[in-house]
Amino acid sequence: MPGFRAFHRFSMTYKKKISLKDIAKKAGVSTALVSYVLNGKEKESRVGIAMTEKIRKIAQDLKYKPNYVAKSLRSGKTLTIGLIIADIANPFFANIARVVEDQAKKSGYTVLIGSSDEKPENFKDLINVFVNRQVDGLIIVCTEKSSKQIRILQEKNYPFVLLDRYFPELDTDYVSIDSHQASFSATDHLLKNGFHKIGFIGYESELFHMQERKRGVISALEEAGIQPKEAWFKDIGFDKVETDMKNAMNEMLRAEDPVHAVVFGTYRLAINGLKYIRQLKIKIPQQLAIVSYGQAESFELYECPITYLEQPLGELGRKAVELLISKLHDPQRQSQRILMETKLKIGESSKLPHP
Amino acid sequence: MPGFRAFHRFSMTYKKKISLKDIAKKAGVSTALVSYVLNGKEKESRVGIAMTEKIRKIAQDLKYKPNYVAKSLRSGKTLTIGLIIADIANPFFANIARVVEDQAKKSGYTVLIGSSDEKPENFKDLINVFVNRQVDGLIIVCTEKSSKQIRILQEKNYPFVLLDRYFPELDTDYVSIDSHQASFSATDHLLKNGFHKIGFIGYESELFHMQERKRGVISALEEAGIQPKEAWFKDIGFDKVETDMKNAMNEMLRAEDPVHAVVFGTYRLAINGLKYIRQLKIKIPQQLAIVSYGQAESFELYECPITYLEQPLGELGRKAVELLISKLHDPQRQSQRILMETKLKIGESSKLPHP
Repeated sequence: MPGFRAFHRFSMTYKKKISLKDIAKKAGVSTALVSYVLNGKEKESRVGIAMTEKIRKIAQDLKYKPNYVAKSLRSGKTLTIGLIIADIANPFFANIARVVEDQAKKSGYTVLIGSSDEKPENFKDLINVFVNRQVDGLIIVCTEKSSKQIRILQEKNYPFVLLDRYFPELDTDYVSIDSHQASFSATDHLLKNGFHKIGFIGYESELFHMQERKRGVISALEEAGIQPKEAWFKDIGFDKVETDMKNAMNEMLRAEDPVHAVVFGTYRLAINGLKYIRQLKIKIPQQLAIVSYGQAESFELYECPITYLEQPLGELGRKAVELLISKLHDPQRQSQRILMETKLKIGESSKLPHP
Repeated sequence: MPGFRAFHRFSMTYKKKISLKDIAKKAGVSTALVSYVLNGKEKESRVGIAMTEKIRKIAQDLKYKPNYVAKSLRSGKTLTIGLIIADIANPFFANIARVVEDQAKKSGYTVLIGSSDEKPENFKDLINVFVNRQVDGLIIVCTEKSSKQIRILQEKNYPFVLLDRYFPELDTDYVSIDSHQASFSATDHLLKNGFHKIGFIGYESELFHMQERKRGVISALEEAGIQPKEAWFKDIGFDKVETDMKNAMNEMLRAEDPVHAVVFGTYRLAINGLKYIRQLKIKIPQQLAIVSYGQAESFELYECPITYLEQPLGELGRKAVELLISKLHDPQRQSQRILMETKLKIGESSKLPHP
């Protein structure tokens, strides 16, 4: 832990500040010399041990508090990383934030988090706040309509890594899961368990990963020789999940050719869907089978334990930090694109119904 | 939304910067005059409209990017609030963070979040990082052993509000729930439902709110004329929840005088306890009744819907922001201490067993 972060030295605006000049005067040396010592550069600057100690002692006696904003302005290093997540109330992001913190801490970085709540304007604000506050780099979970910001960061060669969501057309570092493969495997599992009419409920979103989650279901159905019906695929507005979910479920279940199984594209969609299914007194999996993205540590405590796609949270978070730190050390290195696999954790909600 | 946060203007270190001097030169005026205009002080400084427009136009043409770190250094205002939470992976804090963000946004503030993971050293780091990065003020969920830091902030008259946890001996702003009343009401509910041997599982913690949660159970038992047994009260180490929980449950259930009901002091404790109860195949509420603190939007989807103490999350978060902003406007105002009531949301886990 670098000593300069010790709490008692933080710079406050409410007290008259002791400057390097004050210390220099008392020590009878130049301000530059004091600066060398207090910035730990006494060796390179060949300041003797006795003088180094004298200056440190005076600084301590005068209760000198370095001004870190001014300092980071000069050195350009802050040992902080900014993490922008899409929704802090979503346990997937909250848990990944925890991993990112732990991992960053191991390399001496403190993480500051901002949540965009999936709002492009909040996302923009957060990018500004972080860049203007000069964190060393960013780990970013994008919202919709954020590709322009990402493009600008990229042009400026600002160090960042995309997490969970990415733009296939942009040549940036990213760490994500293979959503197409995940949806494909979930659908394949349902098909093998005897469910053939399989729907997907996702967010109304242009984001690539959400599109892939839908496409994966469609691919698996088509590969099994089943023609996916339009009524089986529903998009939910992020800001009206409750009402959209009711409409979507009603339409899927009351369609001419109703679904037998649903894949939920996120944890929050699953929670909302399950609440409504409970209200309708629909039995899982007898009347409707369920597989969900996103993981809650409590999925297995549910009335009907939910089959879900376990994302490698720990690996995702750790890799993102690793990529960012390597970028900080080598800003010119080639970008790395990493897609990880999910694992299907089989609960009761996707089991073959006994006729 | 203040214009200066527009993304395209953010200051980057990779480009040659246009300075006020460059603009002044081109406009043929003093740097001070340019500074007045670009800081919106043209009226106070009696700069004419034509000159104001000329300077703005030149700044725009040159793509002038103000340096915000330097700027906030001078103005002392950043329009950011720091929020330190105890554990981002806990939905209680994640959800409260969401409320704080929404509320702060309404007043034009962006929130940066740090999570201490209940570790005093992380907490200390975060206080430093936030104060050194000069956010305008802090909303703080304390960890253990943090009273010293709080005391220092208080002495410096640094603007902050404590959330959820507080130190009754310190005269600070705080917004929390009345934990004693909450535990009392949970226990009273269990007593009325016919459970008389009631235990409490909390964290091993010196924090006041955790002590109060235990004391509330004890008070209710004593008031009902029941002598609480030591074996009914267990403290779990934050870093070894799984093993401690198993030991605690085993001891409580196998005691000479085993408990009939347990109150869990937090959501995470409840999840872990419930997983173990499930493993043991103990039936809720027939063999063991449960009431829990902390709320998950999914508690009601559990195999046995859990009775829980609903904390007024929205109100807690909103009030904390309100208090902080009022403190920013009036740093000398008296501190305000606010305790809110919880509501018992009755599920199936605390229902009277039919003998």
